[in-house]
Amino acid sequence: MGDTERLVEVIRGRAARTVGLQFPVGLRTKAVELAQEIESKAGVTCLVSADPSFGACDVAEMPVDLIVHLGHAPMPHLRYNRVFFYDLPGPALASMAFVDAAEPLLPKRVGLLTTTQFRHWLPAIKEHLEKKGHAVRIGEPDRRVAYAGQLLGCDYHTATIVEKDVDGYLYIGTGDFHPLGVAILVDKPVIVADPERGTARDLKEVRDHVLRQRHAAIARAHDAAVFGIIVSKKIGQERMDLALGLKALAEKHDRRANIFLMDLVSPEFLEGYRVDAWVNTACPRIAIEDILQYKQPMLTPQEFEIVLGERDWSEYAFDEIRA
Amino acid sequence: MGDTERLVEVIRGRAARTVGLQFPVGLRTKAVELAQEIESKAGVTCLVSADPSFGACDVAEMPVDLIVHLGHAPMPHLRYNRVFFYDLPGPALASMAFVDAAEPLLPKRVGLLTTTQFRHWLPAIKEHLEKKGHAVRIGEPDRRVAYAGQLLGCDYHTATIVEKDVDGYLYIGTGDFHPLGVAILVDKPVIVADPERGTARDLKEVRDHVLRQRHAAIARAHDAAVFGIIVSKKIGQERMDLALGLKALAEKHDRRANIFLMDLVSPEFLEGYRVDAWVNTACPRIAIEDILQYKQPMLTPQEFEIVLGERDWSEYAFDEIRA
Repeated sequence: MGDTERLVEVIRGRAARTVGLQFPVGLRTKAVELAQEIESKAGVTCLVSADPSFGACDVAEMPVDLIVHLGHAPMPHLRYNRVFFYDLPGPALASMAFVDAAEPLLPKRVGLLTTTQFRHWLPAIKEHLEKKGHAVRIGEPDRRVAYAGQLLGCDYHTATIVEKDVDGYLYIGTGDFHPLGVAILVDKPVIVADPERGTARDLKEVRDHVLRQRHAAIARAHDAAVFGIIVSKKIGQERMDLALGLKALAEKHDRRANIFLMDLVSPEFLEGYRVDAWVNTACPRIAIEDILQYKQPMLTPQEFEIVLGERDWSEYAFDEIRA
Repeated sequence: MGDTERLVEVIRGRAARTVGLQFPVGLRTKAVELAQEIESKAGVTCLVSADPSFGACDVAEMPVDLIVHLGHAPMPHLRYNRVFFYDLPGPALASMAFVDAAEPLLPKRVGLLTTTQFRHWLPAIKEHLEKKGHAVRIGEPDRRVAYAGQLLGCDYHTATIVEKDVDGYLYIGTGDFHPLGVAILVDKPVIVADPERGTARDLKEVRDHVLRQRHAAIARAHDAAVFGIIVSKKIGQERMDLALGLKALAEKHDRRANIFLMDLVSPEFLEGYRVDAWVNTACPRIAIEDILQYKQPMLTPQEFEIVLGERDWSEYAFDEIRA
């Protein structure tokens, strides 16, 4: 795991006797090794948290002196309790081939975006693109993201803050979801440069496909009588006030709505309830990426407003969780 | 939902403004209806807990004035926080046909067992069997079970307490798991009378099959170097002291062991960790009923002791969670 010495120092400095370790799925293979190393070097007992962890929004409580959370950057606005975010060294930038593959698709003025994993690559990529004649902007972070140019699946601030200064975006990363929000929020091209595949792609088709899917979900929910409004228990996903507002809005329009409180949102946990459509106020990915797994339509809060006639489709907006 | 008046009175009596509702899977179909009824009659806001609930051992915390837990009897030794157990009326005993189907398989002296759902049938079934010449015993409850004759999947006290006075047991219920523990703990025949199917069966074959499966799991774990000891976060399933004792025992025998803390125990949450075998201190059903879903052997604490050479196979015991 590289320099666990630094982590051992932190544990000693806090006089912790029990340490909780939280890993994202991709780092589970390192969990036993790290726990063993910490136990022998720091003389503590480690508890590995085996509840899935999806981000810095999802830091589980543990009965320990110190929680060590790996693989995510802290969200500055959240008040974590006894949590140390252990920043693993990211992968090295071995080649610019994937950036060069994206370059011909880019406008002159471009905003650079990525996730926490690749954030240390941005200065070199900016310089590389500037040499090729681009004007490159990297948006400063706000209260919910830690680093410049960092996107969350629920926060596109570093993209929208530079919107007026760019004609399109380059996203460094492997998946579609993070840049998808940008492509829907901002009417400018979003290009993905994928360091694992070494290739680049324009997000336009994915964006259009998802928007058609959202339109269909809204249409399916149009005549729903009973809505289930999902509220997360996770520290950075809980939006109870929003949910209670949506419940009141539903009742104003003579629809029935009930609040469903849960930790992990998963299709099997929502089976059996007599609900015609779901409204998701937890992680925005759930409604967008997982919609086909749910029997009933799964709407974002903004889409629910469209169903109720409180918002026009022309004002469609991607869901974000703002501090 | 029958007499919700009583529930509304309780809610008013406690001056609750927000009420959490927890349902077992089988009652999810009633959730929206009950929430709507309570909201309109008691003038409160209901939050439906959509985290799965497996028993009175599994009462989730909710940010509400009162939690209403349905479908399970409280466990007397647990200190619940603002929880009201709402006792739904159980099904009526429409016919004794399933008892009559079991009767020829029963010894003269028989212990009656069931789950909370059918507990109100026991006096009538006792009388019915006594008329046919049987001596019937119904074991008194202890600190972990609420009712006479009630079995939990982790507590067989009402069976073992009458062991010396009976030559076999009659279990009233639909599944195999609850009486299976009795069949393994006590070397006497256990007959299941199934009120849904209207039939009866001897548990001997299931018992022997499960014991062979346990033997195989112990053999597969024999040379494991790294054990993952699972500890539940659930109020009635947490056995951290036991887990820490097992970890120390493993280290005494030069095996490595780490504690894995989790809420819901599920195969996908344990994937990826570099562990050769699991030891389950959460709900005992997980190791027995779900073993085929896990890649690595999943042992009970007692089985782990056999692997380490601290217990002989002849002392094999079914796992129970005792207060």
